[in-house]
Amino acid sequence: MPRFKLTVEYDGRPFSGWQRQENGPSVQGALEAAVFRLTGARAHVQGAGRTDAGVHATGQVAHVDLDATWEGWRLREALNAHLVGEPVAVLAAEPARDDFDARRSAVQRRYLYRIFNRRAPLALDRGHAWRVKRPLDDEAMRAGARGLLGLHDFSTFRDSQCQASSPIRTLDEFELTRVGEELRCEVAARSFLHRQVRSMVGSLVEVGLGKWTPNDLHAALDAADRARCGPVAPPDGLYLIRVDYPSKSND
Amino acid sequence: MPRFKLTVEYDGRPFSGWQRQENGPSVQGALEAAVFRLTGARAHVQGAGRTDAGVHATGQVAHVDLDATWEGWRLREALNAHLVGEPVAVLAAEPARDDFDARRSAVQRRYLYRIFNRRAPLALDRGHAWRVKRPLDDEAMRAGARGLLGLHDFSTFRDSQCQASSPIRTLDEFELTRVGEELRCEVAARSFLHRQVRSMVGSLVEVGLGKWTPNDLHAALDAADRARCGPVAPPDGLYLIRVDYPSKSND
Repeated sequence: MPRFKLTVEYDGRPFSGWQRQENGPSVQGALEAAVFRLTGARAHVQGAGRTDAGVHATGQVAHVDLDATWEGWRLREALNAHLVGEPVAVLAAEPARDDFDARRSAVQRRYLYRIFNRRAPLALDRGHAWRVKRPLDDEAMRAGARGLLGLHDFSTFRDSQCQASSPIRTLDEFELTRVGEELRCEVAARSFLHRQVRSMVGSLVEVGLGKWTPNDLHAALDAADRARCGPVAPPDGLYLIRVDYPSKSND
Repeated sequence: MPRFKLTVEYDGRPFSGWQRQENGPSVQGALEAAVFRLTGARAHVQGAGRTDAGVHATGQVAHVDLDATWEGWRLREALNAHLVGEPVAVLAAEPARDDFDARRSAVQRRYLYRIFNRRAPLALDRGHAWRVKRPLDDEAMRAGARGLLGLHDFSTFRDSQCQASSPIRTLDEFELTRVGEELRCEVAARSFLHRQVRSMVGSLVEVGLGKWTPNDLHAALDAADRARCGPVAPPDGLYLIRVDYPSKSND
């Protein structure tokens, strides 16, 4: 069966998360329903990352096997026509090799976390960013973030429900950029533990508020103890923005 | 009675527009209701610009007279507490001089119009931008926009319901910036005619699509004839982002 790679954008607010489940709508379920309406087949749509309830994506990647061959742009248009009314859009669809696996073949995942650092509530970006009322010290947060880079046991920043076999990960990038009242945190790694980004961002905000020093954060990391994590940041600000694959995997 | 200047952000989607009306919720009505819940008084909240249904703001300015003196930050917090549930936020509140008038004292208004130039529907920015599916030629649009700058009779780009006494306006600025698939149009003038920005942007998109040349646009302007306007751009992409006043008006 021909395999296709899909690049997907979605608003996480109405969903219980990426993963199909018994109760509550999911992004995977919305895509599988669109495939069913289009082809009549019950296909499995496999995503690169299982985003949580309320988490958004501008560059989630998934693969799906279909009965027929499709030109990429036609498949994208047809799926979007069957997604009308859902806050889910297929940005790109392209034929993929049989051994392309959106989850297993990924070599890097990239997330953005948006913080609005201001007193006033968010009228336009409600559900699309985290508002932090008290002033954040960007420089202290950058110093904190630097200590998270590289290979570590990230148990401190790992949800207790995480099913990964190892808490060891390599954080490739953690960039903080301020644009006016918006603080944008961009992180990249081959893979992340469950709630790792929100756990790291939530703890870094403790540094930004002056409750923790950068060294406190590094000590929390070194302790490899979930009890040492700061408050987990809400899903609202988190976006899966890009998934990378070896350059030949999609030929 | 002490006068206050308010800077206001809102999501225009659920509103019939800025202006209070018999049927349908308005931003002005939401603010006046918040003032009433806070003070018990029926105060008039005067805005700098009467944005249409579905048009957003990140920097609308309004003035209101209250019975009591307030520190600016306390008034902002109190109004926001009474706006919970409404997609309206007071970004700043400050005491103003008695002769400060949000509408009449304004010396420049600035709008942003956001276009997403892509095939796929908008999952995250639905209602917050205009999706134009076919490729836009930015350079042709810039050439078209340059011809709109300066003093003109803008009758072509004026809604038939416009109540301004004169169609003569001076357009100070029209900047087009592309960020990936997003095209951002920023325009500034002392004041605008009704639907002038959406009329100009809609006509410029005709240029971007190659249906009109930049010269066609300039000829349409020179004709000073509403029948020569292109399709009016939808409200979704329009934001009132800033209103300026003489530097001393708010002392």
